[in-house]
Amino acid sequence: MKAEIISVGTELLLGHTINSDAAHVARELAAFGLDLEHVQTVGDNAGRLEAALREALARSSLVVCTGGLGPTDDDLTKETVARVAGLPLVEDAESLARLKEYFGTRGMGKNQLKQTLLPAGAEPFPNTVGTAPGCAVPIGADKFVLLLPGPPSELLPMLERSVRPFLERRAGAVIVSAMIRTFGIGEGTAAERIRDLTQGGNPTAATYATDGEMFVRVTAKAGDETAARALAAPLVRAICERLGDVVYGVDVPNLESVVVAGLARAGLRLVTAESCTGGLLAKRLTDQPGASAVFETGLVTYADATKTRLLGVPTAVLAAHGAVSPETAVWMADGARLRQGGDLGLGITGIAGPDGGSLEKPVGLVYIALSAPDGIWLRGMRPQGRYMGRMWTRLRASSHALDLVRRRLAGLPMEAERWENVGEAPSVS
Amino acid sequence: MKAEIISVGTELLLGHTINSDAAHVARELAAFGLDLEHVQTVGDNAGRLEAALREALARSSLVVCTGGLGPTDDDLTKETVARVAGLPLVEDAESLARLKEYFGTRGMGKNQLKQTLLPAGAEPFPNTVGTAPGCAVPIGADKFVLLLPGPPSELLPMLERSVRPFLERRAGAVIVSAMIRTFGIGEGTAAERIRDLTQGGNPTAATYATDGEMFVRVTAKAGDETAARALAAPLVRAICERLGDVVYGVDVPNLESVVVAGLARAGLRLVTAESCTGGLLAKRLTDQPGASAVFETGLVTYADATKTRLLGVPTAVLAAHGAVSPETAVWMADGARLRQGGDLGLGITGIAGPDGGSLEKPVGLVYIALSAPDGIWLRGMRPQGRYMGRMWTRLRASSHALDLVRRRLAGLPMEAERWENVGEAPSVS
Repeated sequence: MKAEIISVGTELLLGHTINSDAAHVARELAAFGLDLEHVQTVGDNAGRLEAALREALARSSLVVCTGGLGPTDDDLTKETVARVAGLPLVEDAESLARLKEYFGTRGMGKNQLKQTLLPAGAEPFPNTVGTAPGCAVPIGADKFVLLLPGPPSELLPMLERSVRPFLERRAGAVIVSAMIRTFGIGEGTAAERIRDLTQGGNPTAATYATDGEMFVRVTAKAGDETAARALAAPLVRAICERLGDVVYGVDVPNLESVVVAGLARAGLRLVTAESCTGGLLAKRLTDQPGASAVFETGLVTYADATKTRLLGVPTAVLAAHGAVSPETAVWMADGARLRQGGDLGLGITGIAGPDGGSLEKPVGLVYIALSAPDGIWLRGMRPQGRYMGRMWTRLRASSHALDLVRRRLAGLPMEAERWENVGEAPSVS
Repeated sequence: MKAEIISVGTELLLGHTINSDAAHVARELAAFGLDLEHVQTVGDNAGRLEAALREALARSSLVVCTGGLGPTDDDLTKETVARVAGLPLVEDAESLARLKEYFGTRGMGKNQLKQTLLPAGAEPFPNTVGTAPGCAVPIGADKFVLLLPGPPSELLPMLERSVRPFLERRAGAVIVSAMIRTFGIGEGTAAERIRDLTQGGNPTAATYATDGEMFVRVTAKAGDETAARALAAPLVRAICERLGDVVYGVDVPNLESVVVAGLARAGLRLVTAESCTGGLLAKRLTDQPGASAVFETGLVTYADATKTRLLGVPTAVLAAHGAVSPETAVWMADGARLRQGGDLGLGITGIAGPDGGSLEKPVGLVYIALSAPDGIWLRGMRPQGRYMGRMWTRLRASSHALDLVRRRLAGLPMEAERWENVGEAPSVS
């Protein structure tokens, strides 16, 4: 079955807004095996929207419109779809009740009420975040136009809570997907290694790569959720086995969430000491609600003197090897653990660039160390081929640090050089 | 003159990739006053791409295609455009030389050479980042198709270095734009305040809001750059005057860059003490190359004990007022400055959520303090209406902290409550 997306909004044509909605909707459609061949963007212009709608309905059974549902005069999508469908707009009681609850004692402008009108016979999709409901408008015997709000914060919950069940009912099938997340393997290598597992039609498997991580999404379709999960599970297991210990989780938000949860389970406190990542590692840890149970102290020791003062990195080590050296990273990690009251300590020092490199220590060179009571593990990150930029270097270095903790907590091979502990007597009070 | 965008790539139709290219191109087109009414996305399919191209060329003078220029068999854009234009593909000597230089001593696959072929008579656009050049293909007497690479890292420099000059030559005009950046004013209020200044056709002014900041872009068109800048300058000045001291810069990358540069000019060192922002403030400062000149030490004092140990926040203060209180923020800022060797100290403590709030101290409540030798300034951030989420709360709190430093450095009204210094004898060694 063919589907289309029409993104509505002059702000998209002016380039003020990046159209992420189309990707979110496209992913849902793809999961149901719907064939998406056309995505169009039109401005807040009733004539052009009507032309786009008629063109789309002539060739497809499902048209998804995003945007233009709000209270202003520019918001024309619902009115235009109702006209094309030949349906009057009628007040939806539940939408009106929700709108009144949303505004509470605050005053509600008259324009707001416009949002409670839906084409007669449309199935409402409640908006759990904002004020404009979405809906599914029947067109003739077997076609539908879905109207969805433009702001991604409103669109995403509606996709999950209303659009997916709608598509499941239409398809007489339930789609489930599982996301396998990895760190430490390239997309090319991974795709090669699981090629024979990714050829099937149901369940399907597809690789993605972003921000130095690689993901595999497994999707299965079946009559109900239990059956779909049962269909997906063996493929998820097979891919995880094939990829090995670079897999850090399935259906987890990110690497830092796995690390925070693992530390909490183990009852361990982590202390971070960052130079070139400058707080990014601490920020990623504390992005996680509940990080306070395992993370009490993070240090950004940007200057050499701070490394000595707060971490006890000897000035002799800094003088002999430099601030960017395996030795300094190891001392930082050890100092973080012993001097700042941690069970585990992380140290990161490097040259994030774009300046500050030399022939011997190029921009992009970073050392990452994890200190535990029984030893220290060190990784070096060298620019491969080309320097990938300051942001990328910092992000990847912080991911390496998290990966060291993950491997330690899971008892996996550390993929790192083993060093002896170097720390001195703890000075934590 | 009408223009269109055709985004090419099956990954867009599957929702694997968000189409940011269309927004980047749309912004360039809008700056030249080109009328963009249609944006289409098509997959890696020669037939559908050809249909989309013919449709676009029938109604517009300029068609911009992004994506599908790479070395693989799926990359069909150039071949399809050449066929539609009736032009043979010929080898471009400069592109070949660039490709050889790019691969250097590494092996180059045969497929790579495909990228050096351009439609005969096309103007090449060098790719300064990747391997696939872009180009402008003449269609008949007065139409053009621009071919641009899909990866934004390659597209953005090509837009600036090749597409903008191309459009300038075609338009016989140069476009310059200036971005006025503010913190501390809403888009609605700002738009209202400068309404009479934003009505003109040339120069134009438009407001944007993102991540709690508000921007005004002024764009001017003239025969040459000097004339265009002269045209824009009075409007930029008038808008800055009207908006007042919420303007933190014109054509600067962000608030943190202004703060780092301001500290460097003043020869001052900043120390940060973060609780709920958990390193985000330090991360933003160290996103700036050269931050090391003004930022030596950052502390993430997530636990109460760490606030006492590293910042000297008295346990009595924590017990009496709680970790999230004006008093604790003030002690943190003062401790950061006095105990960690700073000229200025920032302290942030709050409830980023989603959990941990109470009736008295709701989720989203944050206190931000700046300590200087002559006093302390405190801001409280209370959730307005609705809690905006953990990420937003953390980002906005870190922006408030940066704004306090900016105002201090510029000698502006602090828009904050004045407190006396509370700190004890410095313990920095």
